[in-house]
Amino acid sequence: MIKVGIVGYGNLGRGAALAVKRSEDMECVGIFTRRDPEKISPETGDKTYPVSELKNFKGKIDVLLLCGGSATDLPETSAGYLKDFNTVDTFDTHAKIPEYLKKLDATAKENGTLGAISIGWDPGVFSLSRLLFGSVLPNGKDYTFWGKGVSQGHSDAIRRIKGVKDAVQFTVPIEDAVNSVRRGENPELSAAQKHLRECFVVAEDDADRAEIEKAIKEMPNYFADYNVTVTFVSEEELKEKRGKLPHGGFVIRSGETSDSTSMLLELSLKLDSNPEFTGSVLAAYARAVAKMAKEGKTGAITAFDIPFRYLSPLSYEEQVKTLL
Amino acid sequence: MIKVGIVGYGNLGRGAALAVKRSEDMECVGIFTRRDPEKISPETGDKTYPVSELKNFKGKIDVLLLCGGSATDLPETSAGYLKDFNTVDTFDTHAKIPEYLKKLDATAKENGTLGAISIGWDPGVFSLSRLLFGSVLPNGKDYTFWGKGVSQGHSDAIRRIKGVKDAVQFTVPIEDAVNSVRRGENPELSAAQKHLRECFVVAEDDADRAEIEKAIKEMPNYFADYNVTVTFVSEEELKEKRGKLPHGGFVIRSGETSDSTSMLLELSLKLDSNPEFTGSVLAAYARAVAKMAKEGKTGAITAFDIPFRYLSPLSYEEQVKTLL
Repeated sequence: MIKVGIVGYGNLGRGAALAVKRSEDMECVGIFTRRDPEKISPETGDKTYPVSELKNFKGKIDVLLLCGGSATDLPETSAGYLKDFNTVDTFDTHAKIPEYLKKLDATAKENGTLGAISIGWDPGVFSLSRLLFGSVLPNGKDYTFWGKGVSQGHSDAIRRIKGVKDAVQFTVPIEDAVNSVRRGENPELSAAQKHLRECFVVAEDDADRAEIEKAIKEMPNYFADYNVTVTFVSEEELKEKRGKLPHGGFVIRSGETSDSTSMLLELSLKLDSNPEFTGSVLAAYARAVAKMAKEGKTGAITAFDIPFRYLSPLSYEEQVKTLL
Repeated sequence: MIKVGIVGYGNLGRGAALAVKRSEDMECVGIFTRRDPEKISPETGDKTYPVSELKNFKGKIDVLLLCGGSATDLPETSAGYLKDFNTVDTFDTHAKIPEYLKKLDATAKENGTLGAISIGWDPGVFSLSRLLFGSVLPNGKDYTFWGKGVSQGHSDAIRRIKGVKDAVQFTVPIEDAVNSVRRGENPELSAAQKHLRECFVVAEDDADRAEIEKAIKEMPNYFADYNVTVTFVSEEELKEKRGKLPHGGFVIRSGETSDSTSMLLELSLKLDSNPEFTGSVLAAYARAVAKMAKEGKTGAITAFDIPFRYLSPLSYEEQVKTLL
């Protein structure tokens, strides 16, 4: 049994705990939280501890799943965890990944541990597709579309507007753009030409709805360049729309192997719950990290370094026989 | 520069030569053939040699791409090549892969070489998707659909019927079946419930067309269990239909991460030319084998053993920066 610890119990931590629970070759040693552990009752029945107790678990956990956020949690804490544990995280601040990787690699090598960074679906499964597709079809162009799904960052930005009680923002791929790519037309597309932003907002009773709509549509970086719709809804309607935080998207590579011989490679994900799927990917990579660490591998690595054979609970022989 | 040799110059060898030509970090040292090399003029301008001269190239080729067939060529010859060279092949007789892998692994380890087997799109890219999808979504079911595309085996089977001058068989995914899977209905489907077989036949002038149609539709294993259409066409029409041997398909995994939280993962390929794409995949794996061999790796391996970082001509830093 692979012994897993989970740090953080937000949406992602909850998804990771569910995934570990459903993995027959893993057990969750504990969920470690900065909140009062008494006040958390995981539906998986896992034990909860204050994160300060983690130090007592050195040697008793094969892999820690770091389920904090990329903005501050991971950059501030993951090197610390990596001193005592093998880790898997979802660090997704793209511009800072090289620096983060370098820093963790040094820590891990010093301490003889192994950390897999930027695991999930993007970065993660989508990154793997971009790398594979580009390698097997070098002469081409690739496109990543996100959605239809909830963007937490954009939802948060709306919630900060005065008069907004709650909000959820869906990123929606523009169908004409997707179809043009699928037809192999290789269009030049900005992020705004690929995606719509649909906003659902619960306003305070006395709020000026026209003002809120204007504030959203003119918000720089987040909305100003995009085609945006704003719909005011009740709290009940919002809850239903938000669901379990659905998401997904496509990676499409279109290219040719010789003149006018076209190829189209596409990966698509349709996820009822972004955090549950991300948690499930983390669990598979926890398995890989546990196995690779056992073989003596140390340092910080990405999905690009990990052969798929390590991800599966099946023996290699079984994989070759049934999946190759 | 990675020095590549190509053994065999059928459709696949031609596709591999095109792919190597288009790879800036590779050069083709030569195409080795059992035919008269004087009679082959590769459009890539590569030199051709009788396969018997290969022994003179030991130490001058980093990787050999074995472009022979799986029925007899590869099982009879690949262990021999592996004694002197690193290799990549497309062995696709699924039932015999474990035995083939074991045999080549022993040869490669004895001789300090590295051989990647069963590379291409199925086995290959599709196998990777099945393994990844099953690992990150363990609670689910997966489906492989092939087509729309030309099945060489089935086309050959039709050509052996008396009165048939030429023929091409398209394997076509049944849309209702694909849609049911995409809706997450997890249907139980036999190969025949997933695929139609469309046959285009050029008959000899004096042939009995009704007899040919009957012979096709009643042929055991190949057609008897399937929904089959037979259309008689002119040689010109057949040539156009055959094109550059288009193919493709989908790997779809449908499952859930918790009760009634569904996920749908799909990889799809749409290929104008099956041999050109397969050749292009071989070239990427030649790069990986060359790099891994240089690092000292020996034995026979599959796509499941190869981290994607080795497939790309980009440096790891560049991969992390631009694709992760």
